[in-house]
Amino acid sequence: MISPETGAIRVLQDAQDPLLVRACRGEPVETTPIWLMRQAGRYLPEYRRVRAQVDFLTLCRTPDLAVEVTLQPIRRFGFDGAILFSDILMPVEAMGLEVEFNPAPEVNPPVRTESDVKALRRPDPTRALGFVLETIRLLRKELPPSVTLLGFAGAPFTMAAYMVEGEVSKEFVRLKSLMYREPLVFHALMEKLSLVVSDYLSAQIEAGVQVVQLFDTWSGQLGPRDYREFVLPHVRRIVELVKTPEVPFILFGNGTGSLLELMAEAGPDVVSLDWRTSMKEARRRLGPRMPLQGNLDPTVLYAPADIIRSRAREILEDVGPDTPHIFNLGHGVTPETPIEGVAELVHFVHEEGRRLREQASGAIAVGTKEAERE
Amino acid sequence: MISPETGAIRVLQDAQDPLLVRACRGEPVETTPIWLMRQAGRYLPEYRRVRAQVDFLTLCRTPDLAVEVTLQPIRRFGFDGAILFSDILMPVEAMGLEVEFNPAPEVNPPVRTESDVKALRRPDPTRALGFVLETIRLLRKELPPSVTLLGFAGAPFTMAAYMVEGEVSKEFVRLKSLMYREPLVFHALMEKLSLVVSDYLSAQIEAGVQVVQLFDTWSGQLGPRDYREFVLPHVRRIVELVKTPEVPFILFGNGTGSLLELMAEAGPDVVSLDWRTSMKEARRRLGPRMPLQGNLDPTVLYAPADIIRSRAREILEDVGPDTPHIFNLGHGVTPETPIEGVAELVHFVHEEGRRLREQASGAIAVGTKEAERE
Repeated sequence: MISPETGAIRVLQDAQDPLLVRACRGEPVETTPIWLMRQAGRYLPEYRRVRAQVDFLTLCRTPDLAVEVTLQPIRRFGFDGAILFSDILMPVEAMGLEVEFNPAPEVNPPVRTESDVKALRRPDPTRALGFVLETIRLLRKELPPSVTLLGFAGAPFTMAAYMVEGEVSKEFVRLKSLMYREPLVFHALMEKLSLVVSDYLSAQIEAGVQVVQLFDTWSGQLGPRDYREFVLPHVRRIVELVKTPEVPFILFGNGTGSLLELMAEAGPDVVSLDWRTSMKEARRRLGPRMPLQGNLDPTVLYAPADIIRSRAREILEDVGPDTPHIFNLGHGVTPETPIEGVAELVHFVHEEGRRLREQASGAIAVGTKEAERE
Repeated sequence: MISPETGAIRVLQDAQDPLLVRACRGEPVETTPIWLMRQAGRYLPEYRRVRAQVDFLTLCRTPDLAVEVTLQPIRRFGFDGAILFSDILMPVEAMGLEVEFNPAPEVNPPVRTESDVKALRRPDPTRALGFVLETIRLLRKELPPSVTLLGFAGAPFTMAAYMVEGEVSKEFVRLKSLMYREPLVFHALMEKLSLVVSDYLSAQIEAGVQVVQLFDTWSGQLGPRDYREFVLPHVRRIVELVKTPEVPFILFGNGTGSLLELMAEAGPDVVSLDWRTSMKEARRRLGPRMPLQGNLDPTVLYAPADIIRSRAREILEDVGPDTPHIFNLGHGVTPETPIEGVAELVHFVHEEGRRLREQASGAIAVGTKEAERE
């Protein structure tokens, strides 16, 4: 689709963009970029030292500290992406509710009626969430140009889950009851959240993030029919409001193996999937051009190095060297993950991603030579 | 495959078997049978009255009381199946561990080493679990011939999850670490559990259950590659040891949308799936002859009657009137489920299942007439 001329110009532009951004755009890359969800966290002793001084919310609200813990895993492992240290419930606080971590999140008062929804504010992120934007500006100064800064927000359904339930839930009975019994109230809440999230992500882009990820951790609790009716229109709207050609948009879901096509329908640049669906299957269903992110089981990081390598290799081979991919876990790093496992993974993905690409282009070169001979 | 003669004999035999058993065998039925996982439970006032007198474990261990609560939902709703009231952790106790419900299950001491696995007993169910077998014998006397008695057990992976973690877990780090780091110990545990479960289900069949269901609630935490290596051989072995032509075998998984083909490979008569995968998709992937069970989202029972009906109708239409199906939820009834919702669902499934079949056979009859005319 790209003429040779345009292609040449594009290559020049791309040379200025880091690996992770180019992979999200589906452009050719020299190796597979890698970052991990929750890569800044309890499994790192340097993170625990910071947390020994301040509580979680203070850490999120203090730019210098948030910058420090965002940078810790970059220094240690050489990830291709640094994800802003924050929490998906930050905007919920800005909407007028009380958020506590004990350590599981609690939201007060829970949102359950039409008037509860109406009372929610649509905050101006430059005021209410200025500390996040300040963290981003500081990070852009600190990070080397090869490392991509990712911003993020919780998706409306996932945020609504905490807001309606008021706490972590197993079966989301209150949330789904609202959805089935008062669909207008449910949609009004989702619409308000979509605007808040869009404002918030746009402000993050304005402040300097180079990729955004929308975390829809709980949408995997819905079947395809409910996702299409109750979630998809809102996610699509956020994508429309936020996505720019410069800043790729990643949509993450957990337990969403049955929803991959619908997630792609929402229009993100990248679909990020958990480990329950194989990359081969995801690639088959979403086609060769869709950039995919994922999807190692986070508990594989507890395994011996040879298992980590063989599982990571399977993912790279399933994806194939010619199709766009950002390596990640299928969900966040768990708190007791061995540091050696993470180091092994990052090293291996970079080496093997390069090797597979060289092998593939070697095979093409050989193929060309053989074709010339005939 | 059946000659007209054999077919005729089969029909005579089937007349003696209840609807649910015939549906599990994939035989033609007059309407769709329905029962619900956890249909005996807290959402029923008559159950809460029994539980006000005794704790959960005493209830499981006292045949007269277990019979009473098993029968309660049959009397109230007219389900086609009565599932033995018990808990999947009963055999774990018989293997020599302490099981408590506070109210979430806890197992002590947790099983984490080779010697822990070796120390586990393979109990004789007629001795160690005689109270369950007595409950079954009493139930067969009490139940009308039209209601099928289902027995059940936890699948090895799901039982191992509680035994290795010692408690309910979110990420199953200990279980999966054992799996990845000490696969021989993990497989030894799974093998022992497979034998215990097989003995237990065979004893239930001997005592009189007419269908058995293996609950693999947690296998949905694994991707297809791990399921194939670590779970499938053990489930297949149980199926081989337990399944008889008379007593159909149902394999249930939760969050196992990516594993349906592998579950079918284990050889059960029926695959039971949660609501995250549509029945249409499951039917497409497993073919028209595979009996399927499921798969309404349990929270739909909190919805108004018209939504319950429309969602149940979608499932019946997705399955189609000519393909074998047992209606169920995608997981268990939740504790605050409105009783009216359950009553509505049972009534509707029976009526609509009959109507769709009559419509289909009417259409065939009309089709035949039109063909004759031409």
